[in-house]
Amino acid sequence: MRKLSIFNTVSIDGYFTDTRGDMSWAHKDDPEWNEWARQNASGGGVLMFGRTTYQLMTKYWPTPLAAKNNPVIAKYMNERPKIVVSHSIEKPDWNNTTRIQGDLPAAVRQLKQDSGDDICILGSGSLIAQLAPEGLIDSYQIAVSPIVLGEGKTLFEGVKERVGMKLTSTRSFGNGNVLTCYEPA
Amino acid sequence: MRKLSIFNTVSIDGYFTDTRGDMSWAHKDDPEWNEWARQNASGGGVLMFGRTTYQLMTKYWPTPLAAKNNPVIAKYMNERPKIVVSHSIEKPDWNNTTRIQGDLPAAVRQLKQDSGDDICILGSGSLIAQLAPEGLIDSYQIAVSPIVLGEGKTLFEGVKERVGMKLTSTRSFGNGNVLTCYEPA
Repeated sequence: MRKLSIFNTVSIDGYFTDTRGDMSWAHKDDPEWNEWARQNASGGGVLMFGRTTYQLMTKYWPTPLAAKNNPVIAKYMNERPKIVVSHSIEKPDWNNTTRIQGDLPAAVRQLKQDSGDDICILGSGSLIAQLAPEGLIDSYQIAVSPIVLGEGKTLFEGVKERVGMKLTSTRSFGNGNVLTCYEPA
Repeated sequence: MRKLSIFNTVSIDGYFTDTRGDMSWAHKDDPEWNEWARQNASGGGVLMFGRTTYQLMTKYWPTPLAAKNNPVIAKYMNERPKIVVSHSIEKPDWNNTTRIQGDLPAAVRQLKQDSGDDICILGSGSLIAQLAPEGLIDSYQIAVSPIVLGEGKTLFEGVKERVGMKLTSTRSFGNGNVLTCYEPA
């Protein structure tokens, strides 16, 4: 059975983007953090996105600017197999992307039973909010960045019932990020 | 100069209360956590509240139920000097409470210059959101509880400009709480 995880950076007040979709505040350069992020990504895997995050990502990662500023991550993001969940994007044009639509929990249950690499959701609060209450997310990596945004979008917007978690590990970094890892309780 | 700190427990999605003011989810019994909370409170100090949190607290801490279920904390809460920030509560009736009103940052600047014990804000997101951008809060103790609420109130609702913080320490507990401590950047 393939594992489904999430990885996101959030502000102290719990937002993974501000109200305009800006996630640039989440990148605070730090050698120890960069090395952890590189190793964390090196295991391969399939990346999964909701439409909004997918469209934000496609505006940046395939560009010459990304290749210049973040060559290692850009190569990784462009080469990895990707899944976008969308009704409206009929032909996703970012390299190596397939699309799923329809009943999301059912589609994800099927995906997890299919053979293949583990799957990691980046950004995509709307997906997380739908999948977390169903117990379909096996692990959560949430890095808390030392900043207050005041408003934005949470990873769990629209969750109707409280979801208990089990803390599995924590680690703090020189840039002030605190990585907190959870599994479903 | 007196120090002003805050102490709050928040959910993974950043809320210190749910939409109905419930904070009961924040109490997960754990010997190590209880001992830390007891020591953290034992330094004395003045407690400060906004009107909403003050009224919630007065409904519980002076009651026989609180004296039975949480005798040590109830005694502490009832005996400590308290400040409530409110236009509408003219005669606060919880033991040992004074009231301030008017220009909040100016009143807090004056309070910090007066002689007396250090001050700690509990709950009271509206106070924190007004004071944090002014740099008037000297330290933040935020415990992240292993639960997702889906909606609620953040400590920084209405903050207009991003506020950068400096991580000073972290500690995790057996009940899954992760204590994160910050100072203004």
